[in-house]
Amino acid sequence: MTVTVIDVRERVMARNDEIARGVRERLERARAPAFNFISSPGAGKTLLLERTLDALNAQLRIAVVTGDCQTQNDADRLARHTDRLVQAVVTNGGCHLDARQIYTALGSIALDATDLLLIENVGNLVCPASWDLGERSKVVLFSVTEGEDKPLKYPNAFRAARIAIVTKLDLLPHLEFDLASALGHARAVNPALRFFLVSARTGEGMPAWLDFLRGEVAAARDDPT
Amino acid sequence: MTVTVIDVRERVMARNDEIARGVRERLERARAPAFNFISSPGAGKTLLLERTLDALNAQLRIAVVTGDCQTQNDADRLARHTDRLVQAVVTNGGCHLDARQIYTALGSIALDATDLLLIENVGNLVCPASWDLGERSKVVLFSVTEGEDKPLKYPNAFRAARIAIVTKLDLLPHLEFDLASALGHARAVNPALRFFLVSARTGEGMPAWLDFLRGEVAAARDDPT
Repeated sequence: MTVTVIDVRERVMARNDEIARGVRERLERARAPAFNFISSPGAGKTLLLERTLDALNAQLRIAVVTGDCQTQNDADRLARHTDRLVQAVVTNGGCHLDARQIYTALGSIALDATDLLLIENVGNLVCPASWDLGERSKVVLFSVTEGEDKPLKYPNAFRAARIAIVTKLDLLPHLEFDLASALGHARAVNPALRFFLVSARTGEGMPAWLDFLRGEVAAARDDPT
Repeated sequence: MTVTVIDVRERVMARNDEIARGVRERLERARAPAFNFISSPGAGKTLLLERTLDALNAQLRIAVVTGDCQTQNDADRLARHTDRLVQAVVTNGGCHLDARQIYTALGSIALDATDLLLIENVGNLVCPASWDLGERSKVVLFSVTEGEDKPLKYPNAFRAARIAIVTKLDLLPHLEFDLASALGHARAVNPALRFFLVSARTGEGMPAWLDFLRGEVAAARDDPT
């Protein structure tokens, strides 16, 4: 029976990867890079995206897809920070977004009038790491309240991501959290990770993150392929 | 194909529930209640269990099983707080513990000389909610750094649990976290939840939690069935 399960899983994953390729092709044709945000519940994905929308809305046309097990709370929060449609995917207990959900969401997004797609995955540091959504990069968030060894204990998420954002930096003075050790663990798991250290609440570190996103959009526009 | 997947999943879940029943019977026969701790990564399961072991080790014979995607860090931490064997289950990316892993772990535990079994699940607020491990109760933890709406967004975990522990209470003064609202959301999802509010770091709220565990052990001993 175990073999059957693996077999079906492999077929489901293969089908997902196929749809993800289609999503990626559409996004690349539209020159709209997508970022897939992955973290534990409560690591601060939504607040980071709210602040990102506030800062970039005037310059970039940003589309947003949010996934949650239940409720549209995150979509409602984000909708207050943009006049564009924020798409909510309710997974009904499902533990990750899949490429088909993104493919369907793209049907309601005017890709020709989109510079950047932000995808907020279900709060889960395990399962979303395995699912390609057609994004340009996965972005893994982890907060300073979570403990230094998270990259070692959840290596798949940190390996799948190109970018790691350490959040809630404003809480550092109130914690026994060794930032250098946390970054070291993340680098040990994935030496290619690019780091941003932010407090979305105070704005600390946000300029570098916003510059990075602007640069990614500019690079996608100028890509000669 | 979707039908096939559901079918296999249902068979896997049914098989898990069958093994969980066997685990539950063995634990009940040994009068050793088990608690299955579920939370986001970094909500403070391990620290709560460390403090619980420190406080109760002299009075109760406590067995511990910890699950992690990767590393034995939690087991190593916990082993410093008990002279009994701490069993580590490394799931290799798997997103939850299952009943078979607990069944296997019981093989190394002298149940006749055990008063209480503490199971620290993989850090994941989604998937572990669906898996019966044969525990007496699931215990869901969520920290005040995670946001008030977690019970609404991850209702399965809060429905599956009998006990909810709000952790990191010492950080409240540094956060915009509405505790009454968070508790209200949790009650809305599961009116039968019993709450404990703790800071494992400062010890605040720990006596009530420890009294509860002592009471559960005493009740299991006195159970006439």
